[in-house]
Amino acid sequence: MTTVNKDLQKERERCTFDPLELTHLLDGGVEKTAIRREREEFFLSDPQLQDTVPAEYKSHKEKYEDAIRKGCRVLEKVQELQEQGKADMDVFSQVLGGMLGSAILKDGNPLTLHYVMFIPALMGQGTVEQQGYWISKAWSCNIIGTYAQTELGHGTFIRGLETTATYDSSTQEFVLNSPTLTSYKWWPGGLGQTANYAVVVAQLYTQGQCKGIHPFIVQLRDEDTHEPLPGIKIGEIGTKLGMNATNNGFLGFDHVRIPREHMLMKNSQVLEDGTYIKAPSDKLTYGTMMFVRVVLIKDIARYLSKAVTIAIRYSAIRRQCQITSDKPEVQIIDYVTQQYKLFPQLATCFALSMSAEWIWDMYNNVTAELDQGELERLPELHALACCLKAVASSDAAGGIEVVRLSCGGHGYMSASNLPATYGLVTAACTYEGENTVLFLQTARYLVKAWRQAISGQDLPPTVKYLTQLSRGIKQRPWKNTLTCIIRAHQSVAAGKIRLATENMDRRIRSGLSQEESWNQTSIELVQAAESHCRLFIVERFITAVRNLTRISKQLHTVLTQLCELYAVYWVLQRVGDFIRFSCLNVEDVPVLQSHLEELLSQIRPNAVGIVDGFDIRDEVLGSALGAYDGNVYERLYAEAMKSPLNQESVNKSFQLYLKPFLKSNL
Amino acid sequence: MTTVNKDLQKERERCTFDPLELTHLLDGGVEKTAIRREREEFFLSDPQLQDTVPAEYKSHKEKYEDAIRKGCRVLEKVQELQEQGKADMDVFSQVLGGMLGSAILKDGNPLTLHYVMFIPALMGQGTVEQQGYWISKAWSCNIIGTYAQTELGHGTFIRGLETTATYDSSTQEFVLNSPTLTSYKWWPGGLGQTANYAVVVAQLYTQGQCKGIHPFIVQLRDEDTHEPLPGIKIGEIGTKLGMNATNNGFLGFDHVRIPREHMLMKNSQVLEDGTYIKAPSDKLTYGTMMFVRVVLIKDIARYLSKAVTIAIRYSAIRRQCQITSDKPEVQIIDYVTQQYKLFPQLATCFALSMSAEWIWDMYNNVTAELDQGELERLPELHALACCLKAVASSDAAGGIEVVRLSCGGHGYMSASNLPATYGLVTAACTYEGENTVLFLQTARYLVKAWRQAISGQDLPPTVKYLTQLSRGIKQRPWKNTLTCIIRAHQSVAAGKIRLATENMDRRIRSGLSQEESWNQTSIELVQAAESHCRLFIVERFITAVRNLTRISKQLHTVLTQLCELYAVYWVLQRVGDFIRFSCLNVEDVPVLQSHLEELLSQIRPNAVGIVDGFDIRDEVLGSALGAYDGNVYERLYAEAMKSPLNQESVNKSFQLYLKPFLKSNL
Repeated sequence: MTTVNKDLQKERERCTFDPLELTHLLDGGVEKTAIRREREEFFLSDPQLQDTVPAEYKSHKEKYEDAIRKGCRVLEKVQELQEQGKADMDVFSQVLGGMLGSAILKDGNPLTLHYVMFIPALMGQGTVEQQGYWISKAWSCNIIGTYAQTELGHGTFIRGLETTATYDSSTQEFVLNSPTLTSYKWWPGGLGQTANYAVVVAQLYTQGQCKGIHPFIVQLRDEDTHEPLPGIKIGEIGTKLGMNATNNGFLGFDHVRIPREHMLMKNSQVLEDGTYIKAPSDKLTYGTMMFVRVVLIKDIARYLSKAVTIAIRYSAIRRQCQITSDKPEVQIIDYVTQQYKLFPQLATCFALSMSAEWIWDMYNNVTAELDQGELERLPELHALACCLKAVASSDAAGGIEVVRLSCGGHGYMSASNLPATYGLVTAACTYEGENTVLFLQTARYLVKAWRQAISGQDLPPTVKYLTQLSRGIKQRPWKNTLTCIIRAHQSVAAGKIRLATENMDRRIRSGLSQEESWNQTSIELVQAAESHCRLFIVERFITAVRNLTRISKQLHTVLTQLCELYAVYWVLQRVGDFIRFSCLNVEDVPVLQSHLEELLSQIRPNAVGIVDGFDIRDEVLGSALGAYDGNVYERLYAEAMKSPLNQESVNKSFQLYLKPFLKSNL
Repeated sequence: MTTVNKDLQKERERCTFDPLELTHLLDGGVEKTAIRREREEFFLSDPQLQDTVPAEYKSHKEKYEDAIRKGCRVLEKVQELQEQGKADMDVFSQVLGGMLGSAILKDGNPLTLHYVMFIPALMGQGTVEQQGYWISKAWSCNIIGTYAQTELGHGTFIRGLETTATYDSSTQEFVLNSPTLTSYKWWPGGLGQTANYAVVVAQLYTQGQCKGIHPFIVQLRDEDTHEPLPGIKIGEIGTKLGMNATNNGFLGFDHVRIPREHMLMKNSQVLEDGTYIKAPSDKLTYGTMMFVRVVLIKDIARYLSKAVTIAIRYSAIRRQCQITSDKPEVQIIDYVTQQYKLFPQLATCFALSMSAEWIWDMYNNVTAELDQGELERLPELHALACCLKAVASSDAAGGIEVVRLSCGGHGYMSASNLPATYGLVTAACTYEGENTVLFLQTARYLVKAWRQAISGQDLPPTVKYLTQLSRGIKQRPWKNTLTCIIRAHQSVAAGKIRLATENMDRRIRSGLSQEESWNQTSIELVQAAESHCRLFIVERFITAVRNLTRISKQLHTVLTQLCELYAVYWVLQRVGDFIRFSCLNVEDVPVLQSHLEELLSQIRPNAVGIVDGFDIRDEVLGSALGAYDGNVYERLYAEAMKSPLNQESVNKSFQLYLKPFLKSNL
């Protein structure tokens, strides 16, 4: 397996730019590439973190047990890094949730929520004293926690949660209870058999009144025996499409008492006598939610890069059919239909990661402003994070399926690692805000912005285009330039926002309530939010590439081609919208189609070079189809040979069932 | 669990038609419903075919062993039916591949290919003598076979297969050999550990010449011990996205000798001295391939119905958020965005099943003609079967994901049965002809038809519209009627075929070869084939509903609404095409959008009734979310409790790994 596949080698030789330059650009500099690679080596070379039998062959229970073993080992190694002073905060998201984590545990890690939700909840919602006590226990891993909010019957609408925490001033305790089956906590990662503590969100009752939902620290299991404590009904929720090692759990309470001090009281408080003191502001809790979404967009872009790397390398190696009948079978990447499946997804990797970077910066600026009491840009950030998370997850999930299918039957195999990658990403369409719900949140902001634009008010940067377009600025004739394409995207977004707003207003005038009118118009509202987001992504991509001045001409050319492909692709995907709302005419469409086809052929010779530039290690790709050396068939065969069914020449089911059946028919 | 969920009960009470009438219509009559139900009861009530622990929790090996046990039991029951004279030919496809089969073995059956490919190959390609000997052995289950064609490196392009069968006239044997790793057979169901015989497709060499691919019967394993025979390298290919109990296998030959009589010689022959006698016609082998595709379209429609039933019932039960703030949480089916996800898929179930029925009839007519030597309609049937299989599989797979996501987090759980259903259907995008390859086959037919239309030749029924449109018939103004929508679909399909043909011809004129021009134009060619197929489906749906004269007015109204929804939905999905190629104007689009929204609200009260009309038994749905009684939460909880992890209060990984780790940090 040491020699590289010849076709792949040729692809690398014909590449017109240096993939390493792209790697450094994506990492943020030469040093950062070195640090990332060193960290990957540190974790991935550990023999204790490697599988002899792939997880797919094991039972659900064995998968869990393996995940705990490897999860603990990963954390031990993080502690080693900490002792060496080499651990930054990023290391947790990298090894628990990110690409590196998915290389170690393909199907999720039951310890992730301890760092991603439990500790942040303590930090965000605990008083200074509570933080001092609990965070030190959690941070040094004396306890393992999770975050229990969603219930069997309640997800999106958290005001509807049913779990109650009733204050008993006589004992100064809260009594946690699950009044119904639908009030059982359901979904938290690590809750099943792993965590011994949780932050539990419940309806607070004190002095006979419901004060809404609040967070409480609850011990779930004995620290020594791990047995569930009295009144705690706990277990895992069962297998899923993916992430089967995350140990998602359920949790019911039968009048479980916890001390008053276990309510997280940074914001609201319950005094000893039961007096309730309300939090000064609700907006502050937005922070964590947005943080998770912003990080998610980055991760999603990386998962897509992984899938695209696998499919492009495979398409350069796989030969199938002939284009010309007297020539040998061709690399499938030479089929234009294959390029049309692969390259727009390749461009999407860049489009999403550049948007992710921009909103990451915006998030940091806005939270810095927040700390100084400025809340002004919060709604804009929130509106953007919502639609970006939705578009990123749904485009990436769809894109992974497109490239998986482009690999034919072999893409259907677990050994391709495409099915598991899809399983991880499609989950992100639902968690951290269901996509349709998020689009409608963005739409709410856009409708408001549109009304402000009409009334001549100033608008924040990302919706400023509405100001001009609300004045009915005359459109220029279509030109096949990026500037024109940005303007056209603005016209489409503005046109769809205008139309949705008008249709809603018409319904209100006809006598429907505001809420019902909103619901009746919601198909168009979702589409308006998606168009706004697409504009944002296209504009960010174009601007970011234009601003890359310190890179080689060769790399700049490649990035410009990808950027144009993305922009043109989406005009053609939504060509009806562009004819309706922008200056694009029916006659311009064939020109765009030719331009798209031209871009595909320009990107073709560099496709392998570009994915090489992503610099994703074989262990992270985890794919027989995508490895750097391109020895696809040898790897597929080697993977098959790992199946436990292949360790014996005859399976016992022959003697037990098949032979008696066959013989009975003689 | 005996009471029905109240919301679901209300939905049933408000239904305006009788679901049972729909059931009878779909089954083809009252008697057929009774027979189907009886057959379902016969198989599904058998305790030996029921699981105590769901397969998802088991190891890959255990899943296989269970599948053999259940597979044999299913065939025993089929034999019982045969003895009672109650088994028709349909029973095999029903219990091995169809909906009923997927209720018994969710993740595939290793014995399916014995009936679906092995026996048909013997029938289609064996001489009368060969049939007499082999079919009786196969039919009575003394041997178990599979069909081995695809190789590790070769799928679509069967001329490129590498396995060789070299005739040795000195011993009157064929020597089967796998000269490379890429020549290993790869994928056949049941090949891994199950089958003891296979029909193997190999390149025939005789008298020093290659005569192309031919089928051979090869014994793989000893009939008594099941040990692989000498020279046979055999095993399974490993886990996949779905169908993990089908035991897909690989197979390599090291100079394996078989008697000359084991070549299936109905068509071509090799005489004792090695003389090769060529088959009179190649076209006859098309038959089986088309048969499988035509059956597949039916099955796909049913799988979509299953997913839609689950999602619609769940959406009527699940309550989340408020539309109006002082009212209780609403059924999510009342969100227009949810209706927009569900109802077009509901309409697609009917659209696909009506097209499937039509092409099934056409298939039977054409094969009857074939038997009389008439080959005329074969190309039309082939072109239609190709694009219909492609559109049906890709629409259904996409549709299942849309409705899965519409169920939020619970749709991600295995207990919803939506992930497994997706796994089965998305596989059909690749097997039996990869979809893009199939679209291009249809396109080849359409380009030819277009040229014939221009030159004034008569065209077969399904492409006759090209005749009128090639003459540039003037379009009428848009009317929002089904007749106008059919015409518009015709204009779009014709316009896209014309454009693709012109672009290809332009490339040829500019000096590109015919083949390269085809490749360069292939994006548009695929889109043209898809538009042609969409027209066919829309037209079939509309015509079929119009022709339903013997049904109640109430049911007819419902079916008309679904039919209109499908037609309007696809105009809006491809609105750019309709503006470009049909008489639809930009100003007509809002009218269509309103019409779509109106149809959603008309279908809303009958949605549950319609899926009740599909009459899919709970065991076939296999879903905690979709059961008839609607006790979603009780069933989800009951399913979770089946997890082996939930059978003990503390998992051993606590003592082994987690506790030592936590304690080491104290």
